[in-house]
Amino acid sequence: MAYLALTGGIGGTKLGLGLARVLRPDALSFLVNTGDDFEHLGLHVSPDVDTLTYTLAGASNTALGWGRKDETWRFMAALEALGGETWFRLGDADLALHVTRTQMLKQGATLTEAIRALSARLGVAHSIIPMSDDPVRTLVHTADGRLSFQHYFVRDRCRPQVTSFEFAGAADAAPSPALLELLPTCDGVIICPSNPYVSIDPILSVPGLAAALKACGAPIVAVSPIVGAAAIKGPTAKMMAELGVPTTAEQVAEHYRGLIDGFILDVADADLHGALGVPTRVRHSVMVTLEDRERLAAGALEFIKELSADLRPTAPLTIDDADDQGNCAQ
Amino acid sequence: MAYLALTGGIGGTKLGLGLARVLRPDALSFLVNTGDDFEHLGLHVSPDVDTLTYTLAGASNTALGWGRKDETWRFMAALEALGGETWFRLGDADLALHVTRTQMLKQGATLTEAIRALSARLGVAHSIIPMSDDPVRTLVHTADGRLSFQHYFVRDRCRPQVTSFEFAGAADAAPSPALLELLPTCDGVIICPSNPYVSIDPILSVPGLAAALKACGAPIVAVSPIVGAAAIKGPTAKMMAELGVPTTAEQVAEHYRGLIDGFILDVADADLHGALGVPTRVRHSVMVTLEDRERLAAGALEFIKELSADLRPTAPLTIDDADDQGNCAQ
Repeated sequence: MAYLALTGGIGGTKLGLGLARVLRPDALSFLVNTGDDFEHLGLHVSPDVDTLTYTLAGASNTALGWGRKDETWRFMAALEALGGETWFRLGDADLALHVTRTQMLKQGATLTEAIRALSARLGVAHSIIPMSDDPVRTLVHTADGRLSFQHYFVRDRCRPQVTSFEFAGAADAAPSPALLELLPTCDGVIICPSNPYVSIDPILSVPGLAAALKACGAPIVAVSPIVGAAAIKGPTAKMMAELGVPTTAEQVAEHYRGLIDGFILDVADADLHGALGVPTRVRHSVMVTLEDRERLAAGALEFIKELSADLRPTAPLTIDDADDQGNCAQ
Repeated sequence: MAYLALTGGIGGTKLGLGLARVLRPDALSFLVNTGDDFEHLGLHVSPDVDTLTYTLAGASNTALGWGRKDETWRFMAALEALGGETWFRLGDADLALHVTRTQMLKQGATLTEAIRALSARLGVAHSIIPMSDDPVRTLVHTADGRLSFQHYFVRDRCRPQVTSFEFAGAADAAPSPALLELLPTCDGVIICPSNPYVSIDPILSVPGLAAALKACGAPIVAVSPIVGAAAIKGPTAKMMAELGVPTTAEQVAEHYRGLIDGFILDVADADLHGALGVPTRVRHSVMVTLEDRERLAAGALEFIKELSADLRPTAPLTIDDADDQGNCAQ
């Protein structure tokens, strides 16, 4: 069995780590948002890819929630003395990743190739695939005007009031070839509890990508990033309020309607079970410990297997690995 | 009185520091070799400019002889783990200078403008001017083939046997506009004891630059980098031997014939005094202490004043500052 997990930043990455701990590298790949990639100080920075990469490599800075562990900041101090931009902090060791990736891209590598090589170098065995090799840039329309994602998210700390989102370049982007290669053998898709608007939507904005996910025929399940009217992490609830939609798990399920085959609610929202017009499961989705992550991952996979059986009523409930190719060709 | 000092790497920079300590910022500018600039890891690195900048800023790593003091190497360690090129070492704080300069150049600044802004930020009051805003790259022809300067100098540690030098791009380069602006008010030029072949010759390879120095009419004096048949610093003597010329101060004076008006010999070469076909002075030129640097600087300036009087027999020996413009218009 082989699965695909869609992730953005910190929240989604928590479940990503859980999945990576319960699934072998050949049984799990990640499709990651690159809508918040940006060119900073002349370097190509891929925040969501890097958060996942460092997390899977066991090298993430869990205190900060981004960047590398045991990081030092001499570069930033020297940059500040030179009058450089310091609102986006790049650690001394982290810099090596950005410098090397930028150089690889300049030398003609695709983003998919660069990420594959660099994550392997960092010891990540699971496949990390960017949503596209083409530049797609999330722009946040706000009461203060249009902002690039990192200006909104990091520099302005999500303070401006959101009115809408734009994925610049999406119209001309194609899904990563590595994704298209993988989909025929995919047995299930997990949309991690990332921000639907700025983590998952950019992925789905790539023409043909959502259709390719659906065409695979494998169940697609999403885990709600909203628990009891609040976002576990990041600005999801604040954005929903500003967009004028209810800050509920129900609204997230609604947002994904037509794409997903199943939805995982937190126990705090158990009252919504059976009321969403899509199969749901109730799980503990607030991930504090590593065990929380693994348990939610196992729950999502179990749900996919159940949905798989429902979607293919003639197939046996337990499908062995040899049958993978057959499943996906459906 | 205003002076111009031509410098390359470490050897020349020692006298540069001495000059900067005895001359006010408005009385001294530096014209620096950029023939060993190179693009490394996607960054524009200017080794000679940086050595001078850090030295004048009091921020140089005197133990290493290059880079910044109190440097850390986290970036290099992370780069090595990623399989990156580590033969040219960039410290964490040093990186900020390369990243910022590269970004400024990408955004349209000239090298002259970038160096002016960054050296000012580092607290350097004296003017540091690159020989040209255009790329000129020193290539070393060796028994092992043609090498870029940094490959020869740093990666291969000057081991390959030199046959000749090439300054790629020189034919299309122009002197820095800041140099041309400064020359009319120049009262003397000091060629610091840098390597004549790979530090000073690249500067002189820029079309029109040597002629502009001469046309100013101010005395040009060179300080020998060869003392008693040995180079104080770097591969000068080794290069001379490989080029089949005597490794003597006399040979250096010969190398500069037609350009210089005076030559400073070390006391170890006092026997050459009066035998070089150019006015000479004998000075202690091995600079160990700060006082050595200042004393040699004062000696060079004194020599220039004497030559000035010789070159303009009708002018008074003591020229006050108000007369600067008049001197230079000669």
